[in-house]
Order: sequence, then C-alpha cells, then structure tokens
Amino acid sequence: MRALRYHGIKDLRVDNDIAEPTCADHQIKVKLHEYSSPTFIPQPGAPHPITKEVMPVTIGHEFSGEVLEIGSKADNPQNLKPGDKVAVQPTIACLDKCNPCEEGYINCCDAAGFVGLSGGGGGMSDSVCVDAQFVFKLPEHVDLDVGALVEPLAVAWHAVDQYPIKKGDSALVMGAGPIGLGVIQCLKARGAGTIIVVEIAHQRQEYAKQFGATHLIDPRKEDTVKRAKEITGGLGPHVALDAAGVPASLRDACLAVRARGTVVNLAIWEKEVPFQPNNLVFGEKKYLAILGYLQKDFAGVIKALDDGSLKPAKMITSKIKIDRVVEDGYKALIEEKDKHVKILVDCRA
Amino acid sequence: MRALRYHGIKDLRVDNDIAEPTCADHQIKVKLHEYSSPTFIPQPGAPHPITKEVMPVTIGHEFSGEVLEIGSKADNPQNLKPGDKVAVQPTIACLDKCNPCEEGYINCCDAAGFVGLSGGGGGMSDSVCVDAQFVFKLPEHVDLDVGALVEPLAVAWHAVDQYPIKKGDSALVMGAGPIGLGVIQCLKARGAGTIIVVEIAHQRQEYAKQFGATHLIDPRKEDTVKRAKEITGGLGPHVALDAAGVPASLRDACLAVRARGTVVNLAIWEKEVPFQPNNLVFGEKKYLAILGYLQKDFAGVIKALDDGSLKPAKMITSKIKIDRVVEDGYKALIEEKDKHVKILVDCRA
Repeated sequence: MRALRYHGIKDLRVDNDIAEPTCADHQIKVKLHEYSSPTFIPQPGAPHPITKEVMPVTIGHEFSGEVLEIGSKADNPQNLKPGDKVAVQPTIACLDKCNPCEEGYINCCDAAGFVGLSGGGGGMSDSVCVDAQFVFKLPEHVDLDVGALVEPLAVAWHAVDQYPIKKGDSALVMGAGPIGLGVIQCLKARGAGTIIVVEIAHQRQEYAKQFGATHLIDPRKEDTVKRAKEITGGLGPHVALDAAGVPASLRDACLAVRARGTVVNLAIWEKEVPFQPNNLVFGEKKYLAILGYLQKDFAGVIKALDDGSLKPAKMITSKIKIDRVVEDGYKALIEEKDKHVKILVDCRA
Repeated sequence: MRALRYHGIKDLRVDNDIAEPTCADHQIKVKLHEYSSPTFIPQPGAPHPITKEVMPVTIGHEFSGEVLEIGSKADNPQNLKPGDKVAVQPTIACLDKCNPCEEGYINCCDAAGFVGLSGGGGGMSDSVCVDAQFVFKLPEHVDLDVGALVEPLAVAWHAVDQYPIKKGDSALVMGAGPIGLGVIQCLKARGAGTIIVVEIAHQRQEYAKQFGATHLIDPRKEDTVKRAKEITGGLGPHVALDAAGVPASLRDACLAVRARGTVVNLAIWEKEVPFQPNNLVFGEKKYLAILGYLQKDFAGVIKALDDGSLKPAKMITSKIKIDRVVEDGYKALIEEKDKHVKILVDCRA
C-alpha cells in the first residue's frame, strides 16, 4: 500500500510498496481518508520501545477514516461495524507496565509515542491498525474531514479541562495558530464568557475572531498584561493558556492571570527561557503543563461536535491529494504559514 | 514603649520613646515576649496602603505574647482572656475590599503586608494591637518561645497543604534553612513516608535529619534527580518543595517529581532564572507558587503542636535580649548563618 514516510530531515517520500498492516485480535483496522498537518521520530539505532521501529516511519497523527476490520478479541463497546466513520486517537503507550499507565495517565507513559510519528503506521497511508480503545465513532452528521480535526481539538480540550471553567469565566489565549484556535473553540464550547486572544499575525487574528475570541491584543501595539486586566475589570483573567511558547507569552500569562489564577502551557519548548517565579508567587498562581490527551478528551470533542458546540470545519483551509503532499502541502505550510490553519490530505486513491 | 525599628539599610535601632499602641474595638492587645529572625518595608514617600506608615517601622513578624486587652467589639470565639498565651498571624490585608479578600484568599490581598514589616507595629516591641481574628491561643503545654515559631511553621504548613499528602507519600525538599526545616516537620506531621532533603551545608543536613529527613542529598556530590528517582523506586517523589530558590533547585525539582507530580515553590526570587517548561510538560506536572498563609494554617500548626505531631523547639538555637539584638542577633545570623535556625529575641524588660 501507499504511505508517506519520513526518511530523514527534509526527506519525505510517498512510498508505494509498503506492506498492508494486519489487524491483530485486539485491534481495529481503519481505512484512511483524511489527514491534517505534520519530532518524535525514532532515529536509526534507537528504535521506539513499543513499536520497535526506526525511520523511515509513516507520518500523520491527525486523521479519520472508516472501519475496515475488527479484531476477534477487540473490545467494542461502541458497536463499531465495517464502514463506520471514525476518528483515531494516535496514542502509543505500554498501557499497563509503567506507573502513569497503571494510574490511567497513558499520556505520560514512560514509553509514550504517537502513531504517525513513532512507528506503528500513520495517517498518511491507505490503512492503519490500532488498539480498539483508540477508535472513536463519529456522529452521522460529522464529515470525515472534520473527523481529522478531532486530534488537535483533543489537545485543546485536554488543556481547557485543567481549569474548571464556570459559565462566564474569562480566559487569555496566547497565540492563535492551529492549537490556539482549538483552545478558543473549546473555551467557547465550555462556557467561557470572555476570550482574550494575543496574536501578532493579522490573518490569525481574523481566524481568532471567527472562532470565538471576544477581544484581541496585538502585543506589538499594546501592553498585554495591562490590557488583559482592563478587559477583566482590573482582576485579570481566571485562566491563561499558552499556545505560543515564547518568553513573552510565559511572562505575560503569569503576570496577567488573577490572584489564585491558573496558567496552562500547551507549548513544547525548544530551549530554556527566562522565568521569574515571583510572577506566580504574588497572587499564589498555578502553572500547569499538559501533554497530549486521554480517551475522555476524544470523547468530549466528539460529543461537542455532535451537539454543535464545536464547529471547527473552517479550520480546514486547503485540501490536497496525498501524491502532492510533499510539493504542495509542506510548501504551503512553510511559505503561507499564517494563511493556513489545517491542510487536509486526501488519502483516497 | 520600646521597639526595634528599621530606619534604613543596615540601620536598625532599639527606640525607647515609641507611643504605646491603643487597642481598637475589634482588636486584641498583646504583650510581647519572644520574637524570632528578620523586605516589605514601606519607603519614604510610599506609605503602605493600609497602615499608612513609612519607615522607620517596628520589625518582627514571628512572635508570641500574652493577651493584655480585648477590644469591646472584638470577635472572641476562643474566649481569650488577659494573660492567655497567644501566637499572632501578622497578616495585614484589606479583608473585604479586593477580590482575593472577598474570596477568602487574604494572603493575596491587593494591599497585603505584614505586621512587623509594613507598619502596624511589630514583634520586637513591648506590645502590639492586632485584629482579633489573627490571635491564636496556644495550648497550655506549649511555651511562648515555641509560640514564636508558629509563623514560619505556618508558611511550611500552607505549602505542604497544596498537595494532598497521603500516608507514606514521598517528598523532595530543596534547602534545609529555617523554612525547609519547617517543611520537613510539616511533611512528617502529615504522614509523608519518604522525605528526601537536598542541602549543601553540613550543619543544616544534621538539622534536617533531626527533624525528620529520611534521606539526604548533597548536590555537589550526587546527581539530585537521579538519586531522588532511585530512592523512590525509579518514579520520583510525589511532590517537591522548593525552599532554596536557585536555578538548580527549580530545575531539579521539576525533573525529579514523578509524572503528574507537583512542585511547590516557597521561595521569593531575586531575579529571572533559566527555566525549561518541557521539564514539566513531559510528565504533565504542576508548579504551584505559594504566598504566606491563611488562618487555617495557623490553626493547623497549633493543633499539631497540641497533639505533639510537631515538635519544633530545637529550631531555637539561641536566645538574646532585645537590647542586644542589633549587636548579637543579626551578627550571628550573618556570621554563623548555617549554625543557627532561629534566634529568639526576649522582649521582656
């Protein structure tokens, strides 16, 4: 079968002679349709502890598809049948050998990885076999393209879930890239009243407004902390979510939230940054880091898609065919970065 | 009356002609006996918003005494009577005008200060008048010198209270100065099974053992993170409490705690330090900052002193008279820093 594989830095190839995966007893085999956007790639000599694979690995960790086959011993509480539309949680975890998995935090598994990054197949392919607990049935009225957005929305859902949002609460979102836009939507779906978004790029500011931002701050033109406090009656927002991951977003998020407020970090950081812990001390604030998601986050997103409180379709700004992904997809993401939110890859022949 | 007052940098004076404070209706007047160790001092031109005072201010925020007078409208649920031994919570807060005070977090008051630092009198004096809710009766068998330790122990109690310690849980304590030693005792009193203490100074290591450390790490000789994980079966401690406040303690606390673990910061930081948020991201950890204490922390410490689960008397390493405090007390704290934990000042004539 066909799969887009990572062979090394700047070397992505659509390989056509990949063996079709076999559906093990506990797995479900999914025929792939849609995939969106592209470093947990296991390098030569250091195979992933669970998949045992090294690169080239098939990429694509945000995807939907339809059920092809159900393993004979697969748990199937959703009563999945071949042909059902599904979204896949691409978690790779030992599931019971390490302490985090034992305690139910499989996102913190000692050997954690992702389908589509760590081996075990991936979304940019014809089919993939995954553990049954990670396959989520999509509601009838939710299209497969929207199904491919469940994964990034689950990241945002998991982040928003760290703070018990009450109706009307105020939130500050640092950055309106794909994850930031997901955060805005999840905040709105969960009842936040004031959603203040800090973003420099004009196009992203526009997307932020479309998806639910009630206020925008351009940090080049305004003092983020001062403005966020003004908007929230001098107190500061209840929660700040950092999807920017730069020194200024860390500092301003900590300074802006109200006394006893919460900062949730969604970013992965390239290196150490300057940090003044007193910005949390005065006001006794919390800084929470999140990593990925759990099954309940996928379930939460799908329920919100079902009841219409999440309507993310406009995040899809382009669709391309899998055989043009290297030429067109990554080029667009690099050269027209701010214009695109999610570029879907159509994996159908 | 007599009071030790801060007149400026390196200018502490025992002033003998200070007016005796008058007990307002809602206050209790306390005759001062004991005080321990010494920058929230309001500078000329910038009076504290609540006390309206600028320096010189009377210092001493860790103290005990005996009730002299009870205001006619003072709430007195403890049925305090003149002569009762008491510890005083030196909180200055607006109590109802700001959002944190309204929500009960008076430690985060917009105008927060401390008796003994911000005006409103202080412990190094003959008497002080404070709001009735901040006066705590000491058990009969608890001496006034131990009563002067309630305040620093309340800081530690409040920090330990941020993580719901279960019997046998493991904790990492960074630094065994006075606050770190208080943290060790509060952890022990609340059931922690493994208390790992990171400290360089030999004398402080000895105190740490006396007060309940089960393991010591000298970070100059051992890798703190590696050793803390070894001691806790490879997982890392459930919680880390940073009473050191240096770049290495921040980094090691974040790296050492187990997945989903908690880091509690007790330090006040002089400046920005390097920080890698990924050290929290991988393992989805929390970083909580604390500030001071609440009334329930004073009550918790006093209950633990009463039932014997806290026995802090050995923290008092020296006692001096108030008229020798400048010459002997601060000199000892500076020149024999590691030898002393708490030097008590006897304020009696």
